[in-house]
Amino acid sequence: MRSVLQGRAKKAGLPPGSLIHVGERRAETVSVTVAHYDQESFTETQVQNAADCRSFVKPDSVTWINVDGLHEVAVIEALGKEFDIHPLTIEDILNTGQRPKLDILDEHLYLVLKMHRYDEKTGGINAEQVSLIIGHGFLLTFQETAGDTFEAVRTRLRTNRSRIRKQGADYLAYTLLDSVVDGYFSVLERIGEEIDGLEDELMATPDTRTLHRIHFLKREMLLLRKSVWPLREVLSGLQRNDTPLFGDGMAMYLRDLYDHTIQVIDTTETFRDMTAGMLDIYLSSVSNRMNEVIKVLTMFAVIFIPLTFIAGLYGMNFNTGASPYNMPELNWYYGYPFALGLMTAIGLAMVVFFKKKNWF
Amino acid sequence: MRSVLQGRAKKAGLPPGSLIHVGERRAETVSVTVAHYDQESFTETQVQNAADCRSFVKPDSVTWINVDGLHEVAVIEALGKEFDIHPLTIEDILNTGQRPKLDILDEHLYLVLKMHRYDEKTGGINAEQVSLIIGHGFLLTFQETAGDTFEAVRTRLRTNRSRIRKQGADYLAYTLLDSVVDGYFSVLERIGEEIDGLEDELMATPDTRTLHRIHFLKREMLLLRKSVWPLREVLSGLQRNDTPLFGDGMAMYLRDLYDHTIQVIDTTETFRDMTAGMLDIYLSSVSNRMNEVIKVLTMFAVIFIPLTFIAGLYGMNFNTGASPYNMPELNWYYGYPFALGLMTAIGLAMVVFFKKKNWF
Amino acid sequence: MRSVLQGRAKKAGLPPGSLIHVGERRAETVSVTVAHYDQESFTETQVQNAADCRSFVKPDSVTWINVDGLHEVAVIEALGKEFDIHPLTIEDILNTGQRPKLDILDEHLYLVLKMHRYDEKTGGINAEQVSLIIGHGFLLTFQETAGDTFEAVRTRLRTNRSRIRKQGADYLAYTLLDSVVDGYFSVLERIGEEIDGLEDELMATPDTRTLHRIHFLKREMLLLRKSVWPLREVLSGLQRNDTPLFGDGMAMYLRDLYDHTIQVIDTTETFRDMTAGMLDIYLSSVSNRMNEVIKVLTMFAVIFIPLTFIAGLYGMNFNTGASPYNMPELNWYYGYPFALGLMTAIGLAMVVFFKKKNWF
Amino acid sequence: MRSVLQGRAKKAGLPPGSLIHVGERRAETVSVTVAHYDQESFTETQVQNAADCRSFVKPDSVTWINVDGLHEVAVIEALGKEFDIHPLTIEDILNTGQRPKLDILDEHLYLVLKMHRYDEKTGGINAEQVSLIIGHGFLLTFQETAGDTFEAVRTRLRTNRSRIRKQGADYLAYTLLDSVVDGYFSVLERIGEEIDGLEDELMATPDTRTLHRIHFLKREMLLLRKSVWPLREVLSGLQRNDTPLFGDGMAMYLRDLYDHTIQVIDTTETFRDMTAGMLDIYLSSVSNRMNEVIKVLTMFAVIFIPLTFIAGLYGMNFNTGASPYNMPELNWYYGYPFALGLMTAIGLAMVVFFKKKNWF
Amino acid sequence: MRSVLQGRAKKAGLPPGSLIHVGERRAETVSVTVAHYDQESFTETQVQNAADCRSFVKPDSVTWINVDGLHEVAVIEALGKEFDIHPLTIEDILNTGQRPKLDILDEHLYLVLKMHRYDEKTGGINAEQVSLIIGHGFLLTFQETAGDTFEAVRTRLRTNRSRIRKQGADYLAYTLLDSVVDGYFSVLERIGEEIDGLEDELMATPDTRTLHRIHFLKREMLLLRKSVWPLREVLSGLQRNDTPLFGDGMAMYLRDLYDHTIQVIDTTETFRDMTAGMLDIYLSSVSNRMNEVIKVLTMFAVIFIPLTFIAGLYGMNFNTGASPYNMPELNWYYGYPFALGLMTAIGLAMVVFFKKKNWF
Repeated sequence: MRSVLQGRAKKAGLPPGSLIHVGERRAETVSVTVAHYDQESFTETQVQNAADCRSFVKPDSVTWINVDGLHEVAVIEALGKEFDIHPLTIEDILNTGQRPKLDILDEHLYLVLKMHRYDEKTGGINAEQVSLIIGHGFLLTFQETAGDTFEAVRTRLRTNRSRIRKQGADYLAYTLLDSVVDGYFSVLERIGEEIDGLEDELMATPDTRTLHRIHFLKREMLLLRKSVWPLREVLSGLQRNDTPLFGDGMAMYLRDLYDHTIQVIDTTETFRDMTAGMLDIYLSSVSNRMNEVIKVLTMFAVIFIPLTFIAGLYGMNFNTGASPYNMPELNWYYGYPFALGLMTAIGLAMVVFFKKKNWF
Repeated sequence: MRSVLQGRAKKAGLPPGSLIHVGERRAETVSVTVAHYDQESFTETQVQNAADCRSFVKPDSVTWINVDGLHEVAVIEALGKEFDIHPLTIEDILNTGQRPKLDILDEHLYLVLKMHRYDEKTGGINAEQVSLIIGHGFLLTFQETAGDTFEAVRTRLRTNRSRIRKQGADYLAYTLLDSVVDGYFSVLERIGEEIDGLEDELMATPDTRTLHRIHFLKREMLLLRKSVWPLREVLSGLQRNDTPLFGDGMAMYLRDLYDHTIQVIDTTETFRDMTAGMLDIYLSSVSNRMNEVIKVLTMFAVIFIPLTFIAGLYGMNFNTGASPYNMPELNWYYGYPFALGLMTAIGLAMVVFFKKKNWF
Repeated sequence: MRSVLQGRAKKAGLPPGSLIHVGERRAETVSVTVAHYDQESFTETQVQNAADCRSFVKPDSVTWINVDGLHEVAVIEALGKEFDIHPLTIEDILNTGQRPKLDILDEHLYLVLKMHRYDEKTGGINAEQVSLIIGHGFLLTFQETAGDTFEAVRTRLRTNRSRIRKQGADYLAYTLLDSVVDGYFSVLERIGEEIDGLEDELMATPDTRTLHRIHFLKREMLLLRKSVWPLREVLSGLQRNDTPLFGDGMAMYLRDLYDHTIQVIDTTETFRDMTAGMLDIYLSSVSNRMNEVIKVLTMFAVIFIPLTFIAGLYGMNFNTGASPYNMPELNWYYGYPFALGLMTAIGLAMVVFFKKKNWF
Repeated sequence: MRSVLQGRAKKAGLPPGSLIHVGERRAETVSVTVAHYDQESFTETQVQNAADCRSFVKPDSVTWINVDGLHEVAVIEALGKEFDIHPLTIEDILNTGQRPKLDILDEHLYLVLKMHRYDEKTGGINAEQVSLIIGHGFLLTFQETAGDTFEAVRTRLRTNRSRIRKQGADYLAYTLLDSVVDGYFSVLERIGEEIDGLEDELMATPDTRTLHRIHFLKREMLLLRKSVWPLREVLSGLQRNDTPLFGDGMAMYLRDLYDHTIQVIDTTETFRDMTAGMLDIYLSSVSNRMNEVIKVLTMFAVIFIPLTFIAGLYGMNFNTGASPYNMPELNWYYGYPFALGLMTAIGLAMVVFFKKKNWF
Repeated sequence: MRSVLQGRAKKAGLPPGSLIHVGERRAETVSVTVAHYDQESFTETQVQNAADCRSFVKPDSVTWINVDGLHEVAVIEALGKEFDIHPLTIEDILNTGQRPKLDILDEHLYLVLKMHRYDEKTGGINAEQVSLIIGHGFLLTFQETAGDTFEAVRTRLRTNRSRIRKQGADYLAYTLLDSVVDGYFSVLERIGEEIDGLEDELMATPDTRTLHRIHFLKREMLLLRKSVWPLREVLSGLQRNDTPLFGDGMAMYLRDLYDHTIQVIDTTETFRDMTAGMLDIYLSSVSNRMNEVIKVLTMFAVIFIPLTFIAGLYGMNFNTGASPYNMPELNWYYGYPFALGLMTAIGLAMVVFFKKKNWF
């Protein structure tokens, strides 16, 4: 649970705008990488001093400054000062409990969203916060840890002289957003496989592990929803606003991204409905199995109850010598076979009765 | 489950606009058919080279280019280049996991929707993606497999000199959309029959098969909803926008189509409510049957418990010779009849008690 | 179920605008009645030839043409041609699976709604489709069968020189709509009585019949909702649009009608909540009764189990002669009374224990 | 149930605007009271002839005409004619099944709402319909019975030369509305106490009476909601519209009234959630108690089953003389103590086993 | 429950604007503290006479008048008169059952909201009402008790010459609001820990205490929602309206505050979903444990039933001397071992059968 709030409460009582890292300390060291490119050239530098970053920014080229790790407040504060970012925005970057949102500011756009990764070890989803600041000719990105998602984009930047190198910072931002949304699909596909597996399990031999797994999935979906629904608002906000920071040519791309987000939401909701349905199936299959067991008890008990009674009856010690009315059956020649026959007849009659009633 | 995402994840990490077929490979070979007609003439050509298609388009006539099968990316890419279609739109056509949507572009409209067919073998619904691109004087359609739905329209085009031959590409598009929506009604009618059957089963002898069938239906309806609700938005979008690609005379037809879609949605929702109701009835009828069985046990057990106790009582071996107080009943002249009578009396009393309490 | 779609699927594959009767054949023969009136005079004619109808329409008078029975397509098509009605509208009139809607056309208004009647025999609701076309000086109405609802209005037209004779076709249409909505109240009142009865039954002796009746009511309400919610939209559409076909003086009447519809919706929703509540009560009362039965078993079984054990104990055949430790109780002078006393004591102790625990 | 519709159906078939009292006949006789006041003077008159009322209305003073009892249609019709009220409005006044609403007419405002009173006898809520017609310098109010709510306002009018005497008819109407809304708070407070009581009961010894009471409360809340939600619309309608009948100075008061209504809605919804929660607690506490009872049975039965079996075993009549293998235990010196010891050991072992498994 | 309404009903029947304290009497004495500051100076005065407060207000400085305790109506009324506050607003301040709201008045803003504190003793949430009146150069705040939240802000005012001293009354109001919202995070974090603990308990040994705790949490969340959802409206209202009382520079801060509120709502909703999920897990784990217990009974009973029957059989007293058919087994040489063997065989067969059926 703590992860939902991520120590947000330790800020209580501090004046607004106080810069404190709220969240898990994930990356070992904070690293700042500057990628500077235009159609012709591409340079990549590891920067020690945040203040040096500003000098990279030049007209007609794109500077991408990526920060991995958020726990060194000073580094991020320095960057913030260099690029004229409002302290409240810096506060938001440091606070990893943010809800995805878009702030349209005078000189830049601030975007915060969640990146999801399927953790093969725990079978759960890892969420990490990503902040983007899109300015004129530069893009700042802040991640909790260095990850594959952004690396793939960097590789594309390095190796091929493709579309991305011909475009501005807005297209770079879009590409990163697109890769984050693609990550959602990967996560959903893994969950889809999990659901497939659970459905097979449900048809075969469901046990409490199945139940816990379904509940676990339901909860993962809850967290996924919390990331994706606000992302939809963010993207429709980007589409609606005509900030010069996102060029006209981007409209088509933003709509495409928006469509993908809708698809993610759609699939998440479908999965939610499916897990709900699976829960129903689980509960009814468990109660069905229980019923089967109880039916066997019923059958057995009800069949043996009268037989045991008859055995008890002829186990009574009435003095047969005292009167001809006292248990004359005990002295009959075929007394025992008669008793056994009576029992068999009653037993068979009950089996037939139950069969007819379709009880087993 | 995989079908919900259809391998969408394999695109993760690729730059946006990468053309990859996402979905099942359904059609054997990709076939491109060009139908060209005006009020007077009608020609139908199987085309090998996608680049040839463009030459068919002429003013005052309609060219319908239909592609069956989406897995040959090159064919569709060539068509896209010929007709100036944006790579992101081509990407959408190839990705069969689309949510129905309408893109209003400068030179054409892009429509994607789902076609449903009741599969007699599995008793489930097959969904197939259909893309339409409506341009000035031409219509491009893309299906995953060749199917009956479009064939019926083609037959009408060929044989009779009817309304459809006198109208433009917009009317052709409308006719195809109308046939797709009509297909929804066929599917719903089959589901309706299934529900009828299940309701009869529910009243008679519901078993776990019934339950699985209800859950299956619920899930089918879930997928149907995913196709139809966005289609509503698509059609209301078409109605709202006054693009010259859909002539003024089409308004009445679009409204009619919209009404039909609302009817499909309405029926789907009604069916959903009905299956939910059936689930309730199933569960309560199962628990009712269970209760009946348990009541019989109660009755039997409770009636025989005191009788068996009495039999046990007179089976005790107290030495009647040691004292006149030790089980004198055993030596009574009518001891045994007395014991049997006592048992009968107790048994009858309990039956009467239960009858009065209305327990069976 | 089939009634929900009413054979709608048989239209699949046909071109849009194909005129086919979709629905049950209800009326024996199709009859066309023309009522023509102004403040002074009133004439009523049974018409054979649909084409004759047009001639009745004159300025400053109202012509009401009513068609009972929809299965003779030719009659309705002829009427449609006479009054310049769009083929798609004619198609809607013939298709009895319509959702209530309002089409505002150039020369007339097209309204379709559902008429409900409580069927005393089945205890269910009968729904019938009614179409109204309101033109300048005339009103066309189409019903599936001749019915009481419209007859009452006709009687008012005939006998008294009242408000309705002084007003135009719009007021006549309003009066018919009002009588249809009044019909909903009758149906709701019957359902209300049914609910009253079921509630009494619930307090007394609920059985599976009660359950089926509640489910049946829930489903009836589902169908009622499907008629009334869209009617609300129809009426608010009528209020919003300022078509000359509905005079200014009608605003007050339309608002009144709208209020009544809201009341019908309100009551339907209340009834829905009530039936849902009744279902809860039913289920908990059934499980309560079950619990009572099981408690009796518990009580009986638990009390007799130790008694039967003691009886079994003293029924053991240990050789009392072999040792003084072997069941000396059997030879005690007060052995049997001691055993009986022990049983009674244990039995009473358990009864007291259960009473204290408040178990019965 | 009938009260929800209140005989509304008897209007079916009548022309719209027919004046018929729909509802229970509550007041003994219909009484019309006229209160006429300005800042200086206050007169109160019991009026026989409705037609006399009009003459009281003068500029710069307020005339409040209150009608208790709605079953004498003629009285209300006469009043309606005197004050130029539309027949449909009169119809609404007479029909006590109205949903709260606001009609903004040319010369007056028509407001209908529900007054609630907690009935100490039945422990339920009584609802009564109140209609207000606000005109220039006069206010007409119609109640089903004379009641305390309005009397309190009248007392304030009589005794003190306060704010209310200095203001117009709009302020009087506001005061009456305010007192009605205050009445909702009284009702809610009583329900709150009831909920408090039920919660204590739930923690102690819930029985079916508790359940019925919870269901009853749920239903009362349902009816309360039906009154309050539309009232919110009425008040926001009053705020939005700038009719001269409600002076500018009233805005603040209307907002205050609106806030109170929101508070009533809020509390009603909270109570609804609470009763729903109580239902859950009830059901789980009942099933918990049931489980406790069943566990005792389990414990008892399972412990005694093997003991009874052993007793049965040594009650078998194998001939010990026929062979040394035939039940030699019966002739052992410590046979009986051995059997008793075996039973005790098994019994204790099972108790320990159950204790360890934490089953009781 | 009473706390939800807080004696609101005692106002029924009083004229609107009557000043009465509605709520618990919390603070011992009412204390009025005036803090007056500008960038240079800061003075703090305990005021006896409310009328003296006005004189502190000067241009270019901020006067913060804080009232702890609401039960002395006269004090608050005097303040109200001094600062020209509408009687209805004073009424709202005194009535602690307010729903959070914003009133934009001509000369000041009135804000009412709820402050939450986690009560370590009861483990529940304490809610307290806070009213703010923001005027030109002054801020009035009204609390039920003196508390830590505001004290922290006061400390900041006193000690450092920071941002807050350079800003106006609007920034002070914002700071207070921010500290209240931070308080929500503290409460949520405590609830989060509680949920963590409960989840661990659920996996281990859930009992009825767990259940009551979950229900308690659900209800706390209900009350929290009632405070936070309307606060969202309040803040978005503040953002939308451009009153001069909130300077332009505040927009960024208000948006930040709004974002925090959204986060609180988000977390509350997530917690609600989680508690709902926990309830499901609780119920299914309880029923699972129950099932395990019942299965043991089934196993035991079903295994012993036939064994006990056999024992009963050979306990019958048929006269073996009367016929060779009468229980010859009793005289067999290996009769007893045979019986024991039969019993063992049957018992083992059943155990194997159950194992195969996977029943235990």
